[in-house]
Amino acid sequence: MADKMDYASAGVDIDLEGTAVASLISSLSKSVRPSGTHGAPVELPGGFGGLIEFGDYLLALATDGVGSKLQIASQLNQWSGVGIDCMAMNVNDLLCVGAEPIAFVDYVAVPKPDPEVHAALGASLAEACRLARVTLAGGETASLPGIVTELDLSGTALGYLKKGEAITGEHLQSGDVLIGLPSSGIHSNGYSLVRKIMEHAGMDYTDVSPFDCSSSTREILRFNDSSDDVTIGEILLNPTRIYCDPVVDLIKYAQLDDSNFSVEDIRGICHITGGGLSNLLRLHDNLGWEINNPLPPHPEFTWLAEAGGVETWEMYRTFNMGCGMIIAVNQQHSDSICAWLQAKMDGVQIIGQVVDNGRKVVHSTLGIEFTHY
Amino acid sequence: MADKMDYASAGVDIDLEGTAVASLISSLSKSVRPSGTHGAPVELPGGFGGLIEFGDYLLALATDGVGSKLQIASQLNQWSGVGIDCMAMNVNDLLCVGAEPIAFVDYVAVPKPDPEVHAALGASLAEACRLARVTLAGGETASLPGIVTELDLSGTALGYLKKGEAITGEHLQSGDVLIGLPSSGIHSNGYSLVRKIMEHAGMDYTDVSPFDCSSSTREILRFNDSSDDVTIGEILLNPTRIYCDPVVDLIKYAQLDDSNFSVEDIRGICHITGGGLSNLLRLHDNLGWEINNPLPPHPEFTWLAEAGGVETWEMYRTFNMGCGMIIAVNQQHSDSICAWLQAKMDGVQIIGQVVDNGRKVVHSTLGIEFTHY
Repeated sequence: MADKMDYASAGVDIDLEGTAVASLISSLSKSVRPSGTHGAPVELPGGFGGLIEFGDYLLALATDGVGSKLQIASQLNQWSGVGIDCMAMNVNDLLCVGAEPIAFVDYVAVPKPDPEVHAALGASLAEACRLARVTLAGGETASLPGIVTELDLSGTALGYLKKGEAITGEHLQSGDVLIGLPSSGIHSNGYSLVRKIMEHAGMDYTDVSPFDCSSSTREILRFNDSSDDVTIGEILLNPTRIYCDPVVDLIKYAQLDDSNFSVEDIRGICHITGGGLSNLLRLHDNLGWEINNPLPPHPEFTWLAEAGGVETWEMYRTFNMGCGMIIAVNQQHSDSICAWLQAKMDGVQIIGQVVDNGRKVVHSTLGIEFTHY
Repeated sequence: MADKMDYASAGVDIDLEGTAVASLISSLSKSVRPSGTHGAPVELPGGFGGLIEFGDYLLALATDGVGSKLQIASQLNQWSGVGIDCMAMNVNDLLCVGAEPIAFVDYVAVPKPDPEVHAALGASLAEACRLARVTLAGGETASLPGIVTELDLSGTALGYLKKGEAITGEHLQSGDVLIGLPSSGIHSNGYSLVRKIMEHAGMDYTDVSPFDCSSSTREILRFNDSSDDVTIGEILLNPTRIYCDPVVDLIKYAQLDDSNFSVEDIRGICHITGGGLSNLLRLHDNLGWEINNPLPPHPEFTWLAEAGGVETWEMYRTFNMGCGMIIAVNQQHSDSICAWLQAKMDGVQIIGQVVDNGRKVVHSTLGIEFTHY
């Protein structure tokens, strides 16, 4: 039992973070920008924030960082993936309201600027812009030797959608079908626990992976053009999947007159971040979620659970477990939407359904459930 | 001479930062968003970046942090001003292209969340939103005990302008008149040097100010509703002035049919940040700038120069020296524009002119000049 690990014991107090953020939010007064003007805030059902009015459009901002995954990147001096992580964490959030990401800015805080690190970060951000199909519209590098001991990377993404076309979960119904999109690995959440497990296992990030990391729905980004065995560090740093392709395309296709489903048939989109499957609870106040045909977890999740003695419930509360995004669609068009997505991305499948048995997520294959986010 | 201080000796290597940022930028490929579509990058004369197309509008993003001023806030546990600093650094940059700021997101990295600090930050950001007239459209608080040793605060502001109405410096002419807008103090640049001077002077931030800090164009934000003497910490932490009022209003007034000057008469806007007066050089490739009627520096600048033995040239290369924003206007309408601004803000005055004698800034009263940014 002494071997059991969870997210709190790894040093992250989600409740304390929640209290701190609530304190900040409660201090904020209403916006001074009146409804109907550019920049006026838009309240969406389901508590989605970050949207503002802009004529016939809504603009959306998302801001997030890579978090403690950066500590592994620093330790290995490997930066090829973290720009993609930073982009993904932001644009994937924008997709969840049906917004198309169009621009991005990065913020880097370092104890001391290092041109080589910045060149590698730049290459990673350039690749991220290509994958997310956004313009890099600026950035800031701050030298803060008194504040940061190693590199911190965050960013902000801007997206837009047409007024009235936000996807909010508001029209979700019992019977709606859940389509799971495979992740590329751990993505950018849960790394405090990952690092603790690595320490506990006495592993170096440069060690050859102790398990077969092959997974049919992703590839591992190698640090070098290497034929050497894949290291555990390469697996753990595999960049977060960016879902703009296919999700933006799905929405655009649904908007076409001659498509066989419409935007209204896309009822909710959920980015599976910290909190794992419990993220689904944010989409609706009453409905429940049943996962009965889950995507297979990548091998690193199985290894982490074993090496750290982490309970299954805790694993699904912390990690994406192979499924990085879930799209809830009208049951009537679910096969057709799923087929459209499968043609764009390997491993997409129907994983479950929306159910009317109370606000909870039930993973029926494993017999675990989540009742709060 | 051993007492002489400059920015480099305070631990900030501007050249190294430049090289690092150049490395990052050179790694970035062209945007994948084609011209004419939402999000396509817009290249403006004068090297202004950060603008993207959006139908009949351009959208602008600015991202920046508060920097090492935060270390003084942390030491004193005083957060009432830093949200305003963070907002100001971003929205003041947007104003320089003629954009109206409409929304803002904040990013906070902490070793451990503290609800009291977050409540104070929230109050400061709320006040900042009111002053800048923007909507707070989201934010992120990251707990990163392995990366930050104390709080880091940055943010991103979104603004917009009508296509064709960007203010770029492109139409600047010899004879254009420079209008100076007073700063509120040191703003958010040069704090590595400020902290070094404080240490050198053996001063505590809680010490009563050794000089009379009164300055007719600003007030000091007190930490408490106190009748005690003003401390040096309160002076040094005085929040950065947000220039949305009057600059956004000036542009809107100029757009009116019955105003006696037009947007074209506003030829260039310059936010005086790190680099001081040399920031003006960014506005034009050939023209020069003569300051012959400067705004008075606030008393803290005089004190810092004396206490640190900092050369005048270095002071004007590092700090705003009392003038936080400079607007270059058509000479024909300069009196009328200056009068309009004076009615909105105490201390505005004509400080000099654009001259055609090579790309340099000459402060003729002090006999100093800057030839590169």
